Amino acid sequence: MSADIDSMHLLVVAHGSRRAASNEEVKAMVDRLRVVQGDRFAGIEAAFLELAEPSIEDGLASLAERGARHIVVMPYFLAAGSHVSQDIPEILDAFRAGHPDIRLTLKQHIGSSDGMGQLILEIAAA
Amino acid sequence: MSADIDSMHLLVVAHGSRRAASNEEVKAMVDRLRVVQGDRFAGIEAAFLELAEPSIEDGLASLAERGARHIVVMPYFLAAGSHVSQDIPEILDAFRAGHPDIRLTLKQHIGSSDGMGQLILEIAAA
Repeated sequence: MSADIDSMHLLVVAHGSRRAASNEEVKAMVDRLRVVQGDRFAGIEAAFLELAEPSIEDGLASLAERGARHIVVMPYFLAAGSHVSQDIPEILDAFRAGHPDIRLTLKQHIGSSDGMGQLILEIAAA
Repeated sequence: MSADIDSMHLLVVAHGSRRAASNEEVKAMVDRLRVVQGDRFAGIEAAFLELAEPSIEDGLASLAERGARHIVVMPYFLAAGSHVSQDIPEILDAFRAGHPDIRLTLKQHIGSSDGMGQLILEIAAA
């Protein structure tokens, strides 16, 4: 099935851990996202920079095979670092070179959002 | 100045990084929290499990010296692991032993909150 040309797909990119349970925690969160997201995204997948599968490349390719024409990439990182500023953009650039018909939008890492502070306050005060 | 007996203080505990900018990013977020938090907390500080200062012990001691009688500890971690499940609780237990008059409340790590998924969706769809 091809997605609508304007429909967005979402790839949540985590660092990846040697600890399988940490990777499963990310995947479980993404599973919940699919349930609660309504129809904002035609598809949502998790991917990992290193130490876990699927890789970012494989996650992008999987969404592309499912008809994605616009993929939003959300770095699930608390702090900026070379992973966020260099490694992930380089992987996206390489994918773009091979898939000029697919639009990739790289978001800022989750830790940089104003909403993170509000989330901390809400949880801490609950 | 002593805080009200019921007033809560907040300690945001991050892992800590060899990269100074990552630690500064956490501290800057906590600085913003102080501005936007209203009067939910009498004081908010950042602390680090390792690789950066202040340590969790020092952060707790600093809040105690400022009159804190109830400190909420918020693990700023995306995934559960031995740091979240063992290291931080052990540090808190040791502090409790030396400060029986101070109440410590350990929250679940930020990555486990339902709000995290909503935050991802909001940022990704913006």
